[in-house]
Amino acid sequence: MKVAIVMGSKSDYPKLEEGINFLEKYGVEVVVRILSAHRTPKELVSFIESIDGEVDVIIAAAGKAAHLPGVIAASTLIPVVGLPIKSSTMDGMDSLLSMVQMPKGIPVATVTIDSGLNAALMAMQIMSIKYPKLKEDLKTYRQEMAQNVLDDDKSINQ
Amino acid sequence: MKVAIVMGSKSDYPKLEEGINFLEKYGVEVVVRILSAHRTPKELVSFIESIDGEVDVIIAAAGKAAHLPGVIAASTLIPVVGLPIKSSTMDGMDSLLSMVQMPKGIPVATVTIDSGLNAALMAMQIMSIKYPKLKEDLKTYRQEMAQNVLDDDKSINQ
Amino acid sequence: MKVAIVMGSKSDYPKLEEGINFLEKYGVEVVVRILSAHRTPKELVSFIESIDGEVDVIIAAAGKAAHLPGVIAASTLIPVVGLPIKSSTMDGMDSLLSMVQMPKGIPVATVTIDSGLNAALMAMQIMSIKYPKLKEDLKTYRQEMAQNVLDDDKSINQ
Amino acid sequence: MKVAIVMGSKSDYPKLEEGINFLEKYGVEVVVRILSAHRTPKELVSFIESIDGEVDVIIAAAGKAAHLPGVIAASTLIPVVGLPIKSSTMDGMDSLLSMVQMPKGIPVATVTIDSGLNAALMAMQIMSIKYPKLKEDLKTYRQEMAQNVLDDDKSINQ
Amino acid sequence: MKVAIVMGSKSDYPKLEEGINFLEKYGVEVVVRILSAHRTPKELVSFIESIDGEVDVIIAAAGKAAHLPGVIAASTLIPVVGLPIKSSTMDGMDSLLSMVQMPKGIPVATVTIDSGLNAALMAMQIMSIKYPKLKEDLKTYRQEMAQNVLDDDKSINQ
Amino acid sequence: MKVAIVMGSKSDYPKLEEGINFLEKYGVEVVVRILSAHRTPKELVSFIESIDGEVDVIIAAAGKAAHLPGVIAASTLIPVVGLPIKSSTMDGMDSLLSMVQMPKGIPVATVTIDSGLNAALMAMQIMSIKYPKLKEDLKTYRQEMAQNVLDDDKSINQ
Amino acid sequence: MKVAIVMGSKSDYPKLEEGINFLEKYGVEVVVRILSAHRTPKELVSFIESIDGEVDVIIAAAGKAAHLPGVIAASTLIPVVGLPIKSSTMDGMDSLLSMVQMPKGIPVATVTIDSGLNAALMAMQIMSIKYPKLKEDLKTYRQEMAQNVLDDDKSINQ
Amino acid sequence: MKVAIVMGSKSDYPKLEEGINFLEKYGVEVVVRILSAHRTPKELVSFIESIDGEVDVIIAAAGKAAHLPGVIAASTLIPVVGLPIKSSTMDGMDSLLSMVQMPKGIPVATVTIDSGLNAALMAMQIMSIKYPKLKEDLKTYRQEMAQNVLDDDKSINQ
Repeated sequence: MKVAIVMGSKSDYPKLEEGINFLEKYGVEVVVRILSAHRTPKELVSFIESIDGEVDVIIAAAGKAAHLPGVIAASTLIPVVGLPIKSSTMDGMDSLLSMVQMPKGIPVATVTIDSGLNAALMAMQIMSIKYPKLKEDLKTYRQEMAQNVLDDDKSINQ
Repeated sequence: MKVAIVMGSKSDYPKLEEGINFLEKYGVEVVVRILSAHRTPKELVSFIESIDGEVDVIIAAAGKAAHLPGVIAASTLIPVVGLPIKSSTMDGMDSLLSMVQMPKGIPVATVTIDSGLNAALMAMQIMSIKYPKLKEDLKTYRQEMAQNVLDDDKSINQ
Repeated sequence: MKVAIVMGSKSDYPKLEEGINFLEKYGVEVVVRILSAHRTPKELVSFIESIDGEVDVIIAAAGKAAHLPGVIAASTLIPVVGLPIKSSTMDGMDSLLSMVQMPKGIPVATVTIDSGLNAALMAMQIMSIKYPKLKEDLKTYRQEMAQNVLDDDKSINQ
Repeated sequence: MKVAIVMGSKSDYPKLEEGINFLEKYGVEVVVRILSAHRTPKELVSFIESIDGEVDVIIAAAGKAAHLPGVIAASTLIPVVGLPIKSSTMDGMDSLLSMVQMPKGIPVATVTIDSGLNAALMAMQIMSIKYPKLKEDLKTYRQEMAQNVLDDDKSINQ
Repeated sequence: MKVAIVMGSKSDYPKLEEGINFLEKYGVEVVVRILSAHRTPKELVSFIESIDGEVDVIIAAAGKAAHLPGVIAASTLIPVVGLPIKSSTMDGMDSLLSMVQMPKGIPVATVTIDSGLNAALMAMQIMSIKYPKLKEDLKTYRQEMAQNVLDDDKSINQ
Repeated sequence: MKVAIVMGSKSDYPKLEEGINFLEKYGVEVVVRILSAHRTPKELVSFIESIDGEVDVIIAAAGKAAHLPGVIAASTLIPVVGLPIKSSTMDGMDSLLSMVQMPKGIPVATVTIDSGLNAALMAMQIMSIKYPKLKEDLKTYRQEMAQNVLDDDKSINQ
Repeated sequence: MKVAIVMGSKSDYPKLEEGINFLEKYGVEVVVRILSAHRTPKELVSFIESIDGEVDVIIAAAGKAAHLPGVIAASTLIPVVGLPIKSSTMDGMDSLLSMVQMPKGIPVATVTIDSGLNAALMAMQIMSIKYPKLKEDLKTYRQEMAQNVLDDDKSINQ
Repeated sequence: MKVAIVMGSKSDYPKLEEGINFLEKYGVEVVVRILSAHRTPKELVSFIESIDGEVDVIIAAAGKAAHLPGVIAASTLIPVVGLPIKSSTMDGMDSLLSMVQMPKGIPVATVTIDSGLNAALMAMQIMSIKYPKLKEDLKTYRQEMAQNVLDDDKSINQ
């Protein structure tokens, strides 16, 4: 059970932290890399090629004209989960459209803008089709999440 | 290797056809269902619960306030690929945002608006982490796709 | 005279507070619940089914891919007033479109983004077709509101 | 059981027809008027004032800078259902925002762009809190709607 | 030379202040009123009717579903300059579209979002077709404005 | 009573025709010019300077990055009515924003996208502050317009 | 004087044709290639590397999540002119934002959506800083363009 | 090697500073001017005409209805790089569309909103087709930029 997380810039790290912690909590090995589709294209492609057969899912996070997940998806058959990052202009719309609107043939599995946790959860769900243990973990997580809502519900009625 | 494809309305079928054919061509069993998150919510949930353990990936397609993939994702741990459908107003923006912007905890893997093929390819890539044969099929598909581009490239230069 | 107010997350509460106070001021019984369409779907549906015949209007508030009002509307014939909440990205557009663009057959009565008061007022106006007393209360409220404008008008001209 | 339907222009009629037929089918009396918030403001206000106490719900449909439902809502306490109409530019966004973003104090219950049926259904649901018969009718309608989905589901699997 | 400035809410005043000062500086009489198209519709219309023949231009400022200028324009032939105000959501887009997209027959002369000064300048330019003195004032203002740019240009090159 | 109508391209003419006919019907002299802010900037500025003192209002229509009205406004104190034209992409949003969002100091009176008639009416209303005859004409026009609505209203109820 | 024109798909060709003809008319050598950032990433990069020192400007056209110009820009220092192509959804907004919003360090010179001619003209203007002959050609072109406007202006006044 | 940088207002300067420093660091002569397309149109045009033959590239930055680059482009054949500036409303969308959507014949090379550095880099890349030295400098810069990413990548893995 191994996930590679690639981000285009160090400044994206805080948006991914919750997801990284989540994966590690459930025993998923996580490789975190800062590699840019535009500033280090060769290093990016050689990293992606090097993990073929070793990693189950790739999470790629980027802002603005967010090409990173698409460029990765073009170099591998490992499923790529795209996390659009909101930057200082366009309220996240630029990164969302640059990621989700991939042309025919090379899809990116795009999730909620700025939600590193949702990217991690989607990676977990994908891996769970192969590792039954993760399905149990996700069940536990969903129960906890539901319990939190029910606790909030109780607390607001007191 | 089995995929369930759920659409909210019969009129979405033409947008999914290419993806269905693609999956069947490569030997993936496909269950196609028309079930609505709003008009048949109980039948939808009971179908989703009934396929637990039998289906690897669910593709859910919907237009407008496209709740279908999110509602499905809330009832299962099977990964859900969301396909936003463009309807007569808002140019697809409404279905895209209703799908991708899922709250913390329940992600949907959203792909290109109106591209049933990309939904099918993402389902294949997800299943390929479990079924090595599919990885080979996807490799072949990518080579053909690349060859088509190269053929177009040649033809335009003649 | 009874209104159920459902929100997807405790963090939506401040946007609803003014509306809750308004309803209670005029003697409307208010049930406030935190229940999520995605994290607690079964509890949500069973709450909605349990209030059939006891509640006149439901107000449902949610942000991002705001499925809550639509999912509720699919489980009841009680009129549902939808309150889109602006979250950290997309400036409220995602929740607005996810709410108002409901497919044929299951409408949600959507009001101003982030305005818990307008949701409460719409609930009051709906109930007033059955409870004449509320119509008088609304008349009083409108007169006060008008008077406030006229007072501001006076004060600015001094 | 009486609904007034006001539209800003004769050209909006086709978008409302399905809703009018629906209401009449279930025995709701429907008054249809073409009155403009800008071209016939006095006639509009005097019509609205004249129906006070006689009509349960008002449906108001308009395109572009769609002030009609808001202007009506300012002149009555009868709940106003707003139907945004898509015109030749802006894909319906202008009428949606002009309708739903009403200022504090005077809400409009906005429904799906161009969906006269959803406007009629919301009017029915509102009236059903007073007329129990309509609740039964709506139940029947929902069952038929669900059956249509299930029939489509069957037909696609044959 | 007289301008009426109407705003929907006291909170819009700061956005108009620069424009008010500008008009008064050049000897234009300014009547400032807080009147709402929705909360005080009758007072608004009777004010508008009362100024017929006495006021040259009306400036109307409003946010959200900004009906104020359109409603005023429907009650007078005095030219109405619309000033869209950005409120807490939608970044000004809602008020802009609610103002500029007026239906055939009743135009509003819409200017830059939040720019009370541009509203005042447009009012001045309109009045200048009747009062030659104002044209001279505007010439002076433009020269000062140009001089400011040229001074900034100089200062940045030192 | 004289209006200059400038458009950036011959293809914009059909959108202006109704407005030109309207102005001429009421005895306003109309000068129609095709001059581009980008392709013929010098001819544009010299035309604008040549009409100083001879024309009451300028209507400027343009699509895409619609600089024409702003460039004209920078060269004259005659009030400029801007008509955004929808072109093949962006649904009119590009021309609307390029026109209405003028910087501090040089406003453009922007009207409904593609509505040459509203541009003409705004020009008439502006001129009417100087020529009382036009106010009478506008009153007549409004009465006819109202009558048309009332006739449509009657016809739909027969 | 040599320009490489790369497009992601054969279907983009019609949008580029006018630009290709323009460049060839003025003696610029044009290499046209169909190469995809996602389907043929290696062939794309090796083509781009192969033209280093031989080509003055690259024009790259793509639709949807239009990564092509950015991916090219990451592999070369030759200036890249990006041409966003409008596809079946999102009215060109997706390709525009995917192109223009390039991260710090790797800019793309983006021009008007769907305007192959503007891409060609920008390429010509860039080359003209090195080849004085092209500046003369562009001057001629501008004069012809201006003349066309002036001819249209004349014809409309007859 | 000389670049002219024109901005519409002194307040745009901070967004340009990084780009100015970058150009000067590599020995490019930079002329910085504050000149407005609307407030000082004649001074702008005469400055632009005066630099013909002396400047290789012009960078023009502006916000809101950002006409500056287009107006400059209409007066020169020197390539114009447009930098859209985000102002207090519309999140940069107004300046982006006003800049990039230039009509046929007069393109502006638009770069990332608010990124003065990308404007400078594009200017450098354009000049590098004439001055081979700059190509070497850009190579160095890209290597440093890549090295920074690789350093960040290392640091995050420690």
